[in-house]
Formats: sequence, C-alpha cells, structure tokens
Amino acid sequence: MFFEGSEKKAEILVDANKINLLTDIDNAFWSKLVECCHAQILSSIENQHCKAFLLSESSLFVWQDRFLILTCGETHLVNSVEYFLANQGSDLVEHVIYQRKNEYFAQAQPSCFGDDIKVLTKFVEGKAYRFGELDGHHTYIFHQDNHFKAVETDKTYELLAYQISATASEHLTQPNLSSADIRDFLCIEALLPDFIIDDYVFEPYGYSLNAIRGHEYLTIHVTPQADSSYISFESNMNLVKLAPKILAVLQPASFDLLSFNEQDFAEQAIAHIPEQYVSNALVNSTLSNDYIVHFANFIQPKQAYKTPVELDISGENHAL
Amino acid sequence: MFFEGSEKKAEILVDANKINLLTDIDNAFWSKLVECCHAQILSSIENQHCKAFLLSESSLFVWQDRFLILTCGETHLVNSVEYFLANQGSDLVEHVIYQRKNEYFAQAQPSCFGDDIKVLTKFVEGKAYRFGELDGHHTYIFHQDNHFKAVETDKTYELLAYQISATASEHLTQPNLSSADIRDFLCIEALLPDFIIDDYVFEPYGYSLNAIRGHEYLTIHVTPQADSSYISFESNMNLVKLAPKILAVLQPASFDLLSFNEQDFAEQAIAHIPEQYVSNALVNSTLSNDYIVHFANFIQPKQAYKTPVELDISGENHAL
Repeated sequence: MFFEGSEKKAEILVDANKINLLTDIDNAFWSKLVECCHAQILSSIENQHCKAFLLSESSLFVWQDRFLILTCGETHLVNSVEYFLANQGSDLVEHVIYQRKNEYFAQAQPSCFGDDIKVLTKFVEGKAYRFGELDGHHTYIFHQDNHFKAVETDKTYELLAYQISATASEHLTQPNLSSADIRDFLCIEALLPDFIIDDYVFEPYGYSLNAIRGHEYLTIHVTPQADSSYISFESNMNLVKLAPKILAVLQPASFDLLSFNEQDFAEQAIAHIPEQYVSNALVNSTLSNDYIVHFANFIQPKQAYKTPVELDISGENHAL
Repeated sequence: MFFEGSEKKAEILVDANKINLLTDIDNAFWSKLVECCHAQILSSIENQHCKAFLLSESSLFVWQDRFLILTCGETHLVNSVEYFLANQGSDLVEHVIYQRKNEYFAQAQPSCFGDDIKVLTKFVEGKAYRFGELDGHHTYIFHQDNHFKAVETDKTYELLAYQISATASEHLTQPNLSSADIRDFLCIEALLPDFIIDDYVFEPYGYSLNAIRGHEYLTIHVTPQADSSYISFESNMNLVKLAPKILAVLQPASFDLLSFNEQDFAEQAIAHIPEQYVSNALVNSTLSNDYIVHFANFIQPKQAYKTPVELDISGENHAL
C-alpha cells in the first residue's frame, strides 16, 4: 500500500502588535482551518510558547506570532492557508512561506504547486523557486515578496529519509506496535530529553510525533512500508548535527537536508554526513526575505543489483 | 517551458503465420493508430525489414512480426495499443509489452500506469513491475503473461540522459538550428554510418531522429532546454558499449541504461561507464517471458552548490 508521505508546508508570520495567535484565536478556529485541507486534529500539547496539534496527516504548531502547518497524503493544504488569509485578513500577515516537496504520486494530489500558487497570489505577491533538479529530489518554495526580513536566529531544519533499511522498515511495520516501542526504536529519549511529547500510532502502520521544550520543537512523521518508506523530521534544532544519530537508526539509502538560516550548512554537512553518502543535489540561495536556504540530497551509491518490485495489478492501486 | 520528454512505449509481437504487419496493414491504419494517442506521423523511411515513422511525439517502427511505438509529452499511448488490439484482434498477438518511465509532471498526464494497465488487461493477462526506487528514476513494465518466450538474440537498449551540460543545452537550443547542425553535434555520422536517416527539428527546439540499417534501428529524441533537459536513445544496437561516445557529447549529470536480453549488462556497465558516475539504482530480473531486464541509473556526485531555479508564476505554467 502506497502512502504519499511527502509534505506540503506553510508558515504564516503575523504582526504581533495586531494579533496574538495563542490568545486571540481559539481551538475551534484551528480545527476548522485543519478541516479545510481534509485533515483532523487528533490531540495537542502546549507550553507557554507554543501549542502543538497532532493531525491525522502531520502537524500544526502555533506560536504567538506565527503558525506552521505540515500535511501529507492527499491533503489540500493551500485551502487551509486560504482559510486563514480570508478569515483573519492578510493585513495582519507579515509573511507567507509555502513549500512542497515533489510527490511520487502527483496524479493523486488534489492540486499541483502551480495551482496552489494561483490561490496564494490572490492574497499576496510572491516569488517561487525549485530547489533541486526535476529528475531528482526537489522542493518548491513560494514566499511572499514584501517588506519582511527574516532575523538570523530564525532557523528551521528538515531531514527527510527515504528507503530506510529493511531492519527499520520491518521493525516499524510490526503489528500492534506501541508508541513506546517506536520511541525506543527511534531513540527519542536521547534525541529529545525533557521534551513534552505527543505521539500517535496509525493503523495498519505509520507514526507521528510532536515534541516541544521551551522555544524548541521537533516533529517526526513515519511512513514505514518497504518500497515507499519515508520518515520526515522538522525542527528548529540543528538536524544537520543530529543527522548521524538519526541516520544510524534508519540507514536510509537516500535523504534530504533542508535548512533556513543555517549559515554554516555546507561546512556542517561535510563534518556530519557519514562518508558512505554522496551528494546528488546541492542548492542554496539567499531569498529576498533574507532567509538563507540550503537544500541537499544525499544517496548511498548502489553496489549490488536488486530485484524489481512486482506490482499488484488486481485492483485499485495508487502504487502504479 | 517544460516538456515531458519521458516516453511511454509499447511493443506488440504478432504471429507471423497469421499476419505480416508490413504488407497486410496499410499506412492509413498506422496513421489512425498514432492519432489515437494524439500524435501525428510526420514522415517515414523504410528498408526491406522495417518501416520507421517519425511522429510529432517520438516514433513508430513496424517490422513484419512486431511493432514498437514510443511517445512522449502528454500523449495517451495506451489508446493506440487498445486500437490495435480491438481492430486487429488479440488472437493474432503473440505478446504485449508496455512500459512507462516515471514522469516529472505526472499530474499533466492523461492517465497513470495503473489506468493504462486496466485498459490492457481488458485484452490480455499480464504482470507488472517497477524497476527502480519510487524516489529515484524508475520505469514501469507490464508484460503479457502467456506462452511467449523471448529468443536470446532479441535485444533492446535504452539510454536516457538527463541534465545535459550547459554547453550541450545551449548548443541545442540555438535559434534556426538545422538538422545537419544537430547531426554534427550528436556525431550521428560516426554513430550511425550507412544508416538511412529521417530527422526533424521542432520549433522552438527539440529534435527527433529515426535511423535504420538492415535489421538495426536507433531512435533519438531531444528535449534540450536547460532545467528539464532529456535526451533518449533506443536501439537494438548495444548502447552500453556506445555510452562513452554519447556521454562525452552530452555530459549528463544523470542517465539511465535499460536493456532487454543483454546478459553481460553488469560487466559491460563496469567496463564502459565513465568513472565519474556512481550507481543510484541497479535492478535486474528475468521475467516470465524470458526477457532478462536490467535497469540502472547513474549520477555524477555534486561538488558545488548551485542556485535554485526561479519559476515564472505569472501565468499558466506546467513547470510548477
């Protein structure tokens, strides 16, 4: 069974003088916003800085002056962004960033990136980029083009792991796994000491985790099935430095690293990426909003031939 | 401007005791068959063994006992196969093979591989495979599962080049290029001595070539534009051995090799693929029709960071 793990992601920054997203907007609004993209809120955690909602398809984080929503599968995320802009008004919005990783069953998506841009540009003017080659891993980024300038300390990291090892895939697709089993396997305790954690095990498999500690957050989404495995990490903690620990557990044949405002990305990648990986994409740019963006894809060169995947053609199958 | 170069391909083998495709079927039928997938015949060449039609989207080759059709862009190739099976009858068909390279704007395609399988299995039973990982280059192969067994000498090779060098892309997108210019650049004279050649230069760019000599054939299709460049070669000549010459001209950052019935594929790849490339996919299998299939993707590891592609979001743009 194929599941499109690749996320769509939106980050909306608002003018803190005009609105406080934590106190001025109630959970019913966020619930409605999430429903607009055909997802549901499953649970939430919060501390004094942040509310983190675990969704049926990924996550929503709300801070005083911004929110971040990631959704996967066949969700229609741009509709949630449109709902916010239409209902709260784009005059209190400082900045909009909208991002889409290339999908592997694009024909099953309710929209493509170009369609999404048409919706966003009804509200805000912007620029759009493709980081990475068309025939390789790539991510599309749209950002509003206005007065907004990112501060240097506003950093974001993504680590996207593909083709995890057979050991990892088999472990994570066992029946009746508990969230404690999965946390153990992913070494969550070591990775996230003293974090408030909210996680969910999906049926027949799949796992999501939100974690917050002070201003820090991390979210993990696991699509473990062999032949289409994908595990994503997004955080404001430095995932380039944490990569060796994560890669040791998952042993992916391929992974992407993406960062906003990590000035030392190139040096850190050289220092921290294990030697068996080579770069299949290295892209960077300083956008007009002052975000320094790096995107890199790494692969393990193949040494041995493997057999093809035989496809089940007996019925409806999105894996074709 | 983006063009989906990735080809769909069908090969239909018929019972030579029941029909001779060269003498029993007229050009009007082939013209109608080609129109079924929304392509047109532009021109043709022939020798005693083969008729080769150059199409508005790729090529059609007809031999006495088989035909091969490749189409790119947004063509609906399975409709042409359906037309043949419905109008000539599947009782004279010995074997059907249908193949699709993963596309890069799948959402713009009139069907996906799964849809195509549903059409084909109305006429013939079969099996389907994915050669290559979902998140990398891969090709889908469907084949009829019947008494047919391929003979060892029935060999096919494909070389698919992506991200050709800036030099090659700039040369091949010059205005007013003649077919002679392009033949020179691709070293066609050296590659194809004494072949009958039919070629076509598209506007504003793009190039197709069919070549036949006795039982040999080769077809080349060129989508030269930077950021989505793609050049495909298909032949019954050994393209693994010819790869060094082709790669020297195009210098692609990535390429695929695919072969049917090349038993020494692995050894030949080691011998002939230049050292700067590493394998990102190596897949092989002997199918139940006795075809030995190899699929490999090679990439040049990146050393330097490049800038992202800024997208034109002002109008309708399939490149999003």
